[in-house]
Amino acid sequence: MDKLTIGAQPLMFPMPTVLVGSNVNGKANYMAVAWVGVANMAPPMLCVAINHVRHTYKGIEENGTFSVNIPSAKQLVETDHCGMVSGAREDKSAVFETFYGKLKNAPLAKECPVNVECKVFQKVDCGSHVLVIGQIEEIHISPDCMTGGHPDISKVDPIIYSFGDSGYWKVGEKIGKGFSAGRSYQKK
Amino acid sequence: MDKLTIGAQPLMFPMPTVLVGSNVNGKANYMAVAWVGVANMAPPMLCVAINHVRHTYKGIEENGTFSVNIPSAKQLVETDHCGMVSGAREDKSAVFETFYGKLKNAPLAKECPVNVECKVFQKVDCGSHVLVIGQIEEIHISPDCMTGGHPDISKVDPIIYSFGDSGYWKVGEKIGKGFSAGRSYQKK
Repeated sequence: MDKLTIGAQPLMFPMPTVLVGSNVNGKANYMAVAWVGVANMAPPMLCVAINHVRHTYKGIEENGTFSVNIPSAKQLVETDHCGMVSGAREDKSAVFETFYGKLKNAPLAKECPVNVECKVFQKVDCGSHVLVIGQIEEIHISPDCMTGGHPDISKVDPIIYSFGDSGYWKVGEKIGKGFSAGRSYQKK
Repeated sequence: MDKLTIGAQPLMFPMPTVLVGSNVNGKANYMAVAWVGVANMAPPMLCVAINHVRHTYKGIEENGTFSVNIPSAKQLVETDHCGMVSGAREDKSAVFETFYGKLKNAPLAKECPVNVECKVFQKVDCGSHVLVIGQIEEIHISPDCMTGGHPDISKVDPIIYSFGDSGYWKVGEKIGKGFSAGRSYQKK
């Protein structure tokens, strides 16, 4: 069956759903973002695509720091709310209980099981969005999301965001292990 | 319950599992990658973190193009194989059936339900890895992965890669819709 061509679209499967946090005029603000991923191993970095005009971006410019908070499915309503409403229009500082870590001005959402503190490493203007690359300074995680000393995706219960239907999905069953499943590959 | 601090690690939940393709000396090569995401909306861009020494990276340098192929759970064995074995050591050109699209030198893996053609926009040296930002030129998708004119994550059946256990997981149940689930939020 031949494939369809659907033109250039900002597509990825699956995408994460995170809350990017920054302090704007000293007040915590959180924004829902799906365009985020790991950018580097050593030192560890994340990158996140943010529209220039976003309220959250003002805070990143102001402080040179930001947070990436990974909500669990339990925080779905609060997370989507932070994607629907701009901090320029509505004070979102009370949507989550905020705490601070190593960086003193990157707000962390307590209810989210994982919080990543980032310091801006580089910003790349890509057109509509700025790709903000942040060096990870510290990670905070709920003790009940650990298994054998490692973060456990099934306990974090993160939210997948899907291109196409703009839907939120849960993580399903485990089907294999990296650097292991491929052992049964047989040359064609 | 207080959170644990686990130091700086290249963590994200969930991560995608894709195959980055490039032609090295005119031969298709595919590499499994989890550090990939959307980088820009207009024009649409992706970014992918690749170690400088990778065989795939040589092809990206050679041509200024690459592909991002999204495998379904059905391609788990082939995908993990492409993450275990370097193209410098073993010819991986026959792991998938290769076709070409708009760009004539970005190899596309036919068995994967989604293929994204990219032209290098910018490269950022982040330390161990180069963050390659690519402008999306065309997307190819299996017709049976569309619903109502849009790509459907449940039909694509992509593979999630998880930090911590290096596991592969499937997408589970749908729990909400973007710009909708947040409507039931009530101010605290």
